[in-house]
Amino acid sequence: MTEIKTPILDTVNGPEDVKKLDLDQLTIMAEEMRQLILRKDSAVGGHVGPNLGDVELTIAFHDVFESPKDKIVWDVSHQSYAHKMLTGRKIGFMPGHYDEISGYSNQHESKHDFFTVGHTSTSIALAVGLAQARDLKHESGNVMAFIGDGALSGGLAFEALNNGGRMNSNLIVLVNDNGMSIDENQGSLYTNLAELRITEGKARNNIFKSFGFDYRYIAKGNDLATVIAAFKEVKDIDHPIVLHVHTQKGRGYQPAIDHKMAYHWRTPFDLATGAAKTPKTGEDYGDVIADYLNHKTADAPLVAINAAIPGAFGLKAFEAQHPDRYFDVGIAEQFSITFTAALASQGIRPIVFHSSTFLQRAYDQLVHDIAINDVPAVIVVRSGRISDGDRTHQGTFDIDYLSTIPNLKYLAPATKEDVITMLDWALTQKEHPVAIRIPEHGVTHGTAIATDYSDSHYQVLEKGQKVAILALGGFLNLGQKVQAQLQAQGITATLINPGFITDYDTETLTDLKADHTLVVTLEDGSLEGGFGEKIDRFYSASAMKVLNFGAKKEFTDNEPLTEIYQRYHLTPELIVKDILAQL
Amino acid sequence: MTEIKTPILDTVNGPEDVKKLDLDQLTIMAEEMRQLILRKDSAVGGHVGPNLGDVELTIAFHDVFESPKDKIVWDVSHQSYAHKMLTGRKIGFMPGHYDEISGYSNQHESKHDFFTVGHTSTSIALAVGLAQARDLKHESGNVMAFIGDGALSGGLAFEALNNGGRMNSNLIVLVNDNGMSIDENQGSLYTNLAELRITEGKARNNIFKSFGFDYRYIAKGNDLATVIAAFKEVKDIDHPIVLHVHTQKGRGYQPAIDHKMAYHWRTPFDLATGAAKTPKTGEDYGDVIADYLNHKTADAPLVAINAAIPGAFGLKAFEAQHPDRYFDVGIAEQFSITFTAALASQGIRPIVFHSSTFLQRAYDQLVHDIAINDVPAVIVVRSGRISDGDRTHQGTFDIDYLSTIPNLKYLAPATKEDVITMLDWALTQKEHPVAIRIPEHGVTHGTAIATDYSDSHYQVLEKGQKVAILALGGFLNLGQKVQAQLQAQGITATLINPGFITDYDTETLTDLKADHTLVVTLEDGSLEGGFGEKIDRFYSASAMKVLNFGAKKEFTDNEPLTEIYQRYHLTPELIVKDILAQL
Repeated sequence: MTEIKTPILDTVNGPEDVKKLDLDQLTIMAEEMRQLILRKDSAVGGHVGPNLGDVELTIAFHDVFESPKDKIVWDVSHQSYAHKMLTGRKIGFMPGHYDEISGYSNQHESKHDFFTVGHTSTSIALAVGLAQARDLKHESGNVMAFIGDGALSGGLAFEALNNGGRMNSNLIVLVNDNGMSIDENQGSLYTNLAELRITEGKARNNIFKSFGFDYRYIAKGNDLATVIAAFKEVKDIDHPIVLHVHTQKGRGYQPAIDHKMAYHWRTPFDLATGAAKTPKTGEDYGDVIADYLNHKTADAPLVAINAAIPGAFGLKAFEAQHPDRYFDVGIAEQFSITFTAALASQGIRPIVFHSSTFLQRAYDQLVHDIAINDVPAVIVVRSGRISDGDRTHQGTFDIDYLSTIPNLKYLAPATKEDVITMLDWALTQKEHPVAIRIPEHGVTHGTAIATDYSDSHYQVLEKGQKVAILALGGFLNLGQKVQAQLQAQGITATLINPGFITDYDTETLTDLKADHTLVVTLEDGSLEGGFGEKIDRFYSASAMKVLNFGAKKEFTDNEPLTEIYQRYHLTPELIVKDILAQL
Repeated sequence: MTEIKTPILDTVNGPEDVKKLDLDQLTIMAEEMRQLILRKDSAVGGHVGPNLGDVELTIAFHDVFESPKDKIVWDVSHQSYAHKMLTGRKIGFMPGHYDEISGYSNQHESKHDFFTVGHTSTSIALAVGLAQARDLKHESGNVMAFIGDGALSGGLAFEALNNGGRMNSNLIVLVNDNGMSIDENQGSLYTNLAELRITEGKARNNIFKSFGFDYRYIAKGNDLATVIAAFKEVKDIDHPIVLHVHTQKGRGYQPAIDHKMAYHWRTPFDLATGAAKTPKTGEDYGDVIADYLNHKTADAPLVAINAAIPGAFGLKAFEAQHPDRYFDVGIAEQFSITFTAALASQGIRPIVFHSSTFLQRAYDQLVHDIAINDVPAVIVVRSGRISDGDRTHQGTFDIDYLSTIPNLKYLAPATKEDVITMLDWALTQKEHPVAIRIPEHGVTHGTAIATDYSDSHYQVLEKGQKVAILALGGFLNLGQKVQAQLQAQGITATLINPGFITDYDTETLTDLKADHTLVVTLEDGSLEGGFGEKIDRFYSASAMKVLNFGAKKEFTDNEPLTEIYQRYHLTPELIVKDILAQL
């Protein structure tokens, strides 16, 4: 454990203590804070670059403004570590206490936080709301949205600039421009930001002024004296203004400066060398899909699309090999889907990659541009699972919101062989949009369900009696364990790898009625609106009993999977117990 | 029937015929086309102002460009009447044939249409996709997105400008600026558009140039010679350009010029006077809610929010009385929800009004900003129903996508008394977000389910045996008819007005097991992920049989409700028949 002395920070228990410090002390404190950030992130992982970059801005905010009367809203809130340290939560950066505060803003942690946030591009809209609420209550105070350049490309940010720009009262939008989003900035907007940086804010066209905002450029965003002075100038301003501040992502830690993307968010690493402490081992589906894409030849140009997180899908190799057929659209989930629909309508073979949680933002585009137009687009859904992560990044809803959309086929492979055959089929057929939910419990192997997935036909892995287990996608392994435990008790249960979330295999489901009295569904997602409910409906007017296992309707938050599984009865033992109670 | 002579248009059966006409002939044809638009809209209703405004631009497009090699994408596509007339579909504007073409673009109608579109702000994203597909296939041709100024405020339009602006090939974005969206333009962007109009495109800040687009301003967008010349200049341009064209909404029909909002979309009207042919009669829920809002006093400022369609919710009266507490955020559904969340977090009492189909666009904001933050916002959902309208405006999905979200309570009032008590309770409680699904079959009356809706308790209207009918919201009336028909056959069925979509009334549902063998659910929405499936799950491991009635998983398109109801077994006779088959 690295010993770190933080004599200045030790005196700070809230914003009022920041105001007691002089510039030299604040400057020293900034370095103390960086050391704590690095120690924590290197030990347990977390957002590195964003948090190192905004230390001075955060100190300046609490030096100049009066939080919580003056309010700051963090976009994504993955850069709020410094803010947490200065608002009574520095304990969360001490070894042994890392799990006591979350990695995102949280109004239940502190009166200096106003929202639980984890998706991008919401801060300006939230700040406009806070500012309007202030005005409606005839109160005073400043409201600041703190948004990184990367998050600016999301449509909601523009909707909010358009609505914020017509206010006649205080609203400060701080654009923290480090010339990088998660990966490289994507889009022509960034050319304008670059012009503004080069001209020190004097470029002829100014996106923010176009939206009616006053505007100031601050070149030295990591210089405390500069940003303190800038904040003092805009404090209590009576109209909307954008402070465009240039900062350095990863400031103070050379590996994070040199490798901005790798250090945006990082698993535990060695502080001296920057090497990951737990290097990746074994095959994962990122590799499987990357390898597949690089070798796939299709009947038309095969195009890979993602929204700002290529690393999450192993797409950097594809980009390197096929730059003309690779599109990172920036943080713009809606655009990614509508763009995909248009490509597919022209005979191109687009595959768009999304995490379950972020694809939510394109729900309407999925319904309209993809499904109503019924184009043969392929959507790969990752991280669709019951998760031990933050409540703002749950992947439990995708079955609900995707499987109710007409025309869209949603597949749930359980093994690598399922994944490959489903991709192959999806990229060959020309009938419908196809979404594929990648299993998230490591790569497993088996015989593929089929080569043609046009019609639903579940894979019966074991043929038994009385009890049938429909173990969807990544939960096939759980189903196998349940089957084995029942077998040990003398019950030969039928085990099925359904593969198809949408569209019933009516033949198989009907056949089960002959010699089964109980069907059990297992799914790695929410029960509400999930796969299990579809099976319930299928049997609703029959004598077949059905038990559904999956996530309760709740947001979980950084809770160990073992605890969640216990609560949801998602262990083989608890499932077997529930089954036996029904027999 | 008005006799209209169209000698020039009679010669046009496709774009190739447009090219044979000289300027004088094209000018005469424009007037012929306006007469057809007015005759059709006055007879059967439709979009008036948008279609009158772009006749010259449409003629010029087909005169200058080579459709379908050159491609035009209509935003919302509610302004594509002139395009349809010139691309072989003028029959749809002849009396007796009005229902033969749809009011929106449709690739199944014509090779000159590329997408089925009905929601806003997608055209630039679709055009970027078409342009990239062209480049990937090494083809040539122009791609034009045709977007009205109102649709520019939707976030997806900006995401697409950001992605389109970095292309190095042909992309033409025509901004049809009539200084109006559906209602007044909302947002600071419109100040920039006005500056550009006033300066003839020379204003210092230019939103489109900020996004890297080349730019030209065309003041006389209804002058054929001007727009033809402008189109010739940009044809085959090798980079992205915005053509900012000023046109007059409602051009050629004075009532539509004088009352731009009323004539955006209009029910049948008298062409001479402009008076509606079927004036509104009787009470509707728009009036009920408007009246409620105007008289409601709350414990905190009560704020009404909508996204560009106040008329759909009767909000103009509220705006007139309480301009400081009324917010039309423009076409920006995402912002409307995030903004609402922030207001609610500050003790303001926001009610946000949405149509089921448009609220889809804010799904992620509902999950994150509203539900994770668990703020007491109130969401009024209109047009959530099985509809005889266009496939792009179906309101059948809201139960699916709203009821799966944790923390959010979704209520389904059946009567005016339910609506009022639910609004009263929702605006008093401080625990959770509440959405209220307004019934869409006219105002009916009854005894309110409750005054406190904290806990689920269904309303048992008739206590019977064997069969229990759970008739949700607007389908209570259908349930009453089923109950009566069963009664006539000697079966006293239990009739329940559930009121609560989310959260089971476990006591009532459990009690039914004692003396009922069949539960029937009726809902005015999709079966997939719907209310019925929740009831299926409740009884899935019991002996209770359940029959679910609602919409199949499909997009319907301008199909009479009688036909749809027949197909879905949503008539009292068919439901009774299905019930009897189970007894």
